[in-house]
Amino acid sequence: MQLTVYLAGQIHDNWREEVRLKAEEKKLPLVFVSPQTNHDRSDDIGEAIQGKQPSKLHKDDVASDINNFRTQVLMQKSDIVIALFGEKYKQWNTAMDASTAIAMNKPTIIIRPESLIHPLKELSNKANVTVETVDQALDVLSYIFE
Amino acid sequence: MQLTVYLAGQIHDNWREEVRLKAEEKKLPLVFVSPQTNHDRSDDIGEAIQGKQPSKLHKDDVASDINNFRTQVLMQKSDIVIALFGEKYKQWNTAMDASTAIAMNKPTIIIRPESLIHPLKELSNKANVTVETVDQALDVLSYIFE
Amino acid sequence: MQLTVYLAGQIHDNWREEVRLKAEEKKLPLVFVSPQTNHDRSDDIGEAIQGKQPSKLHKDDVASDINNFRTQVLMQKSDIVIALFGEKYKQWNTAMDASTAIAMNKPTIIIRPESLIHPLKELSNKANVTVETVDQALDVLSYIFE
Amino acid sequence: MQLTVYLAGQIHDNWREEVRLKAEEKKLPLVFVSPQTNHDRSDDIGEAIQGKQPSKLHKDDVASDINNFRTQVLMQKSDIVIALFGEKYKQWNTAMDASTAIAMNKPTIIIRPESLIHPLKELSNKANVTVETVDQALDVLSYIFE
Amino acid sequence: MQLTVYLAGQIHDNWREEVRLKAEEKKLPLVFVSPQTNHDRSDDIGEAIQGKQPSKLHKDDVASDINNFRTQVLMQKSDIVIALFGEKYKQWNTAMDASTAIAMNKPTIIIRPESLIHPLKELSNKANVTVETVDQALDVLSYIFE
Amino acid sequence: MQLTVYLAGQIHDNWREEVRLKAEEKKLPLVFVSPQTNHDRSDDIGEAIQGKQPSKLHKDDVASDINNFRTQVLMQKSDIVIALFGEKYKQWNTAMDASTAIAMNKPTIIIRPESLIHPLKELSNKANVTVETVDQALDVLSYIFE
Amino acid sequence: MQLTVYLAGQIHDNWREEVRLKAEEKKLPLVFVSPQTNHDRSDDIGEAIQGKQPSKLHKDDVASDINNFRTQVLMQKSDIVIALFGEKYKQWNTAMDASTAIAMNKPTIIIRPESLIHPLKELSNKANVTVETVDQALDVLSYIFE
Amino acid sequence: MQLTVYLAGQIHDNWREEVRLKAEEKKLPLVFVSPQTNHDRSDDIGEAIQGKQPSKLHKDDVASDINNFRTQVLMQKSDIVIALFGEKYKQWNTAMDASTAIAMNKPTIIIRPESLIHPLKELSNKANVTVETVDQALDVLSYIFE
Repeated sequence: MQLTVYLAGQIHDNWREEVRLKAEEKKLPLVFVSPQTNHDRSDDIGEAIQGKQPSKLHKDDVASDINNFRTQVLMQKSDIVIALFGEKYKQWNTAMDASTAIAMNKPTIIIRPESLIHPLKELSNKANVTVETVDQALDVLSYIFE
Repeated sequence: MQLTVYLAGQIHDNWREEVRLKAEEKKLPLVFVSPQTNHDRSDDIGEAIQGKQPSKLHKDDVASDINNFRTQVLMQKSDIVIALFGEKYKQWNTAMDASTAIAMNKPTIIIRPESLIHPLKELSNKANVTVETVDQALDVLSYIFE
Repeated sequence: MQLTVYLAGQIHDNWREEVRLKAEEKKLPLVFVSPQTNHDRSDDIGEAIQGKQPSKLHKDDVASDINNFRTQVLMQKSDIVIALFGEKYKQWNTAMDASTAIAMNKPTIIIRPESLIHPLKELSNKANVTVETVDQALDVLSYIFE
Repeated sequence: MQLTVYLAGQIHDNWREEVRLKAEEKKLPLVFVSPQTNHDRSDDIGEAIQGKQPSKLHKDDVASDINNFRTQVLMQKSDIVIALFGEKYKQWNTAMDASTAIAMNKPTIIIRPESLIHPLKELSNKANVTVETVDQALDVLSYIFE
Repeated sequence: MQLTVYLAGQIHDNWREEVRLKAEEKKLPLVFVSPQTNHDRSDDIGEAIQGKQPSKLHKDDVASDINNFRTQVLMQKSDIVIALFGEKYKQWNTAMDASTAIAMNKPTIIIRPESLIHPLKELSNKANVTVETVDQALDVLSYIFE
Repeated sequence: MQLTVYLAGQIHDNWREEVRLKAEEKKLPLVFVSPQTNHDRSDDIGEAIQGKQPSKLHKDDVASDINNFRTQVLMQKSDIVIALFGEKYKQWNTAMDASTAIAMNKPTIIIRPESLIHPLKELSNKANVTVETVDQALDVLSYIFE
Repeated sequence: MQLTVYLAGQIHDNWREEVRLKAEEKKLPLVFVSPQTNHDRSDDIGEAIQGKQPSKLHKDDVASDINNFRTQVLMQKSDIVIALFGEKYKQWNTAMDASTAIAMNKPTIIIRPESLIHPLKELSNKANVTVETVDQALDVLSYIFE
Repeated sequence: MQLTVYLAGQIHDNWREEVRLKAEEKKLPLVFVSPQTNHDRSDDIGEAIQGKQPSKLHKDDVASDINNFRTQVLMQKSDIVIALFGEKYKQWNTAMDASTAIAMNKPTIIIRPESLIHPLKELSNKANVTVETVDQALDVLSYIFE
C-alpha cells in the first residue's frame, strides 16, 4: 500500500529532502509532494505566466492563484499531510495548509520547535500528532507499516 | 503521479489537440478527457440512440441526457478542469461545466479572451486561475510538476 | 413551512417584483432573496468599498469578490433556486448560479424563452423543471403547498 | 433574514465591539459570536476546569481543548466568518479559523493592514473578500441586505 | 422540539389523515408533509403547467419533473421519513423515496403488510424500522418523545 | 481509462452476460459487477452462513444483511450504474439500487420496456438516461469513449 | 443562541437530571435530549411495538431498531454531544454514540472516572474535551456563552 | 477487483492471521490492514517517539495520538471493515472503530460471541452483518466474488 504525503511548511532549508532520504532508508512506500519550494519562483509565478502587474498587491494575487491551484491539486491526491513550522516568519501558508488538511479529514502531523508550543496550541490540538523533529515525524509514518 | 484533466468548452476549433500536443512536448504526465467534440454528433446523439423525436425540444432533451451522462462520468474521474471560452455563442455548457467543477472542489482554470473579462468576472473570480491562452494554461499545469 | 427562494438571473426588468407580487396574491409562504439587482451598483461595488482600481479587469475583480460573497451567503440560506434567462447578453452569472444550485442539490427551476431551448439544453436537463414564464414558475411553487 | 457572524482574530483591542456597534447603527439583522476575547481567561481555561497541569505544554493543551470546542460549536452555527489580522503576534488561530471556515464553505471576509499583503496572499486569495478596515467589512455585510 | 415527517407512499386511501389525527391525539409535536396525494392531479400536473404534450411518455416526463421537484423540497426539510407500501401497484415512487431518504441519512420507517416481507426484504433491512400498521409507526414516533 | 459498471436489476434471464459480450465486442474498457444473480443462492445466503432461522421473515432478514453488504461494497467501487426493469415482479431492489446510485451521484442508466413508462416515470426522470434495450444502453456507454 | 445537547451514556443514575438542573441554575440557553433512560423500556420497546419475538437475539434486534431510530433523530438535531462513562458495564452504546458524534463533526465532551483513562484513551483523544465530573462538563458548556 | 479490509478488534490472539490464511486459501483478492497488534508497542508508542511523559494519563494521550493517526490513515484506504469482539476487556477501540466505519459508510461486519448479543445489540443493528466466527465472516467476504 503506497501512500502520498503532502509536505507543507517553510521553504528556507532542505527539510523535505531530509524527509525523502530518511523515508528511503527506512524503505517506506511513500511518495512525497509539496508546494513550490523555490521561494522566488513561488513569488514570481504569477507575473511569469500573467505578465507584469500594476502593483505588488496584484503581483501577489496572481501568484497566489497559481500556488493555491497547485496546493489544491496535490493535497487532494494526498493521504497524509505533514506541516513543519520554523522559528522565523509568519508562516500563514503552513497554518492554512494544516488547517485545510484537518478540515478535509487528512491525517495530519505538525512539526514545530518547543518555542512555538504556545502560539500553535489550538492548531496542534486539532492535528493528529505534533512532534519537534523530522525524525519523530518519520517514526510516526513508519508506525503505519509495522 | 498521473493526473486527469477535463477540457470543457467550445468545440469549434482544435484547441484540445493543441493542449494535448503541448503537454506531450513538455512530457507532463497528464491524461485528457472532454465532452463530445463533434458538434453534429453531440446534437444528434439523442435521436441516434432513442429514435426520432416529436420536436426540436424533445430532440434536444434526449441528446442532453446523454451528453450530461458522459460529462458526469468523466468529470468525476478528473483531478483538474480547464474551461475555454471563445468569443462566439452563448457557451452555457462551458459555464455550467466550470461552475459544476468549482462546486465539486475540482481545481479549475478558465481560458478566455480579454473581451470577455466583464461578462465572466464572477465565474473567473471563483475559478482558481483565469488566463487568456492555451500556453498559459499549460504553464499552470506544468507548475504542478516543478 | 416557510421556504426561501433565491431568484437568479437577469436584472434588466422587474421580473423579481412580479414574482413577489404574484406569490403574495397566492398567499404562498415564501421569502425571496436575490443578487444585487441595480446593475451599476453591482458593477461599482468593488471600487465603492476598495477604492479606485488600476484597470477595468481589477475593478471587475474586486466587484465580483463582493457579488460572489453575497450570492454564497444567500444561496446557502435558500431552499429553492429560480434562474431566469432572457434573450439578451451572455448571462453567465445566471448559468453559474443555476449550475451551482444544482451541484448543491438545491431544487431548481429555469425560466427561459423558447428561443433559448437549444443553447440551454444541457443545463435545462439538469434542473428540476424548465418553464417559459414567471406564471408557470409560480404554478410550480404553488404545487408544493397543495 | 437574520445572519450569524463569527468574528475570528486578535483579541488585543475592542474591534469586535466596534463591529457590533456599527452593525447596530446600520440596523443590520446580524448576531455576532467569537472566541473567548479575554486573553488570560483563554490561556487559563484549561487549568480552571481540569486543575493544575504538569507543564506549560500540558496547560496549553487542556486550554486548547476547550477553546477549540467553543470555536467548533459557534462556527458551525455561523453563516459568515470575518477574520481580522493585526500587525503583531503569530495569529495562527486567526489563520486556522479563516482556513477552516473556507474549507467548510462559510463565506469569509479577511481584514488585514496593507503591511500584511504579502504573507497573507494565499489565504486572502481563498477568502471571498479581503479589506483593510472594519468599516469596509461592514460595507460588505451591508451589501447583502441592499 | 418540533420534527417534520415526510409521508411517502401510496395515495389510494386516507392513511396520511389517519397518521395526522393519531399524532394529534397523542399531542406529538410533529408536522407532516407528503407528495401530491390527488392521483389525477399528480398525473396531470405537467400538462396543467406546460401544456399539452405529444405523447403519454412526454406527459409523464413533464409531470415527473414537477413531482420530483416537490418531493426534493419537502424531503430536504424533513427530519424523518415514513414510507407505506400497500398490496397493489408497483409503488416504485415509494421505494425510490425510501431509498433516497436512507441514502440522505434521514431516519426512516417502512410500513408494509406481511405479504410483502419477501420482495421488500433488502429495503426493509436498510430502513431503521419496519412495521405493519400505522399505529405501530406512531408508537415509534411517540418513543422519541418519551 | 477503465470504468466499473454496476448492473442492477432482475436476475431471471442472462441480460448481464449479453451486456458483457457486447461490451467486449466493442472493446470498451469496462469491468462489470452485479448483485448475486443466482436467485436461490441470494434467498438462501443468510441461512447458509447464519444457520436455520425461526421464520421466513428472519430467513429473509439475514439474507438481506449479506446481499446489502455485497451491493454496498460493489456499488461504492463503481463509476456507473445500469438498472434494468422487466415486466414481472415488484423489482424493488432494482428501484432501491437505482435510487441509491442517483443519491450517491453515480451516473445512472435505466433500461425498461415501454409498458413501464408510467409507473417508473419519477425514477426515470431522476436517472441520467432511460432506454428500452441493452443495445441502447451499450450505445450510451460507448459514447463516453468516442 | 439556543443550543441542543445530546446526553449519551449510562442510564443507571440521575446524572442527566443533575446536568439539567445545573444548566438551569447557570441560566444556560440549552435544551437537552437523550436516549431512552428507562432501562426496561429500552430493552422491551421492540416487543412492545412488534410483538413477542422468537428468541432473545430477536427481541434485542427489534428493540435496537427503535432505539437507534430515536438516537439518529435526536443526535442529528443536536449541536453538542456529551457522553458519560461509568465504572460498570460494557457501555458500548456510549462508545458508539460518542464515536458517531465525532464522525459527524459534532463537538463532543466525554465524562469518565479516572479509572477509565487507559481503556478510553483513543476515544478521549478524538473527543474535544474529556473531564471527570458533570460539573466540569457544565463549566465547558458555560464557557461557550462567556 | 482487489479490496482492502481493515481488521479492527482485540489483539490478544492471532485471529487476524487466521483471516489472512483462510482468505488466501480461498484465493480472495483481499489486502488486510489493522491497528498495531503488539499490545505493548501500542501502549508505549507515544513515549517511544515523544519521550517520557509526566504521568500515565499523559503517556496514554501521546500513544493514542499516534494510534489514532495510524487507524485514520488505514481506515480511509479500506473498502470494508471487520470488527471482532471477544469476551474480555472493555474493547472500546473496537466499538469506536466499528462506529466510525459505519458513520463513514464503510460496509462493516461484526464478529462477536453469543454472550455479547445483548450489550452489542445497537451496534450490531447498525453494522451490515453480525456473525459469531471468523469462518462466517470469510463466507460473507467470499460472497462478494461469487
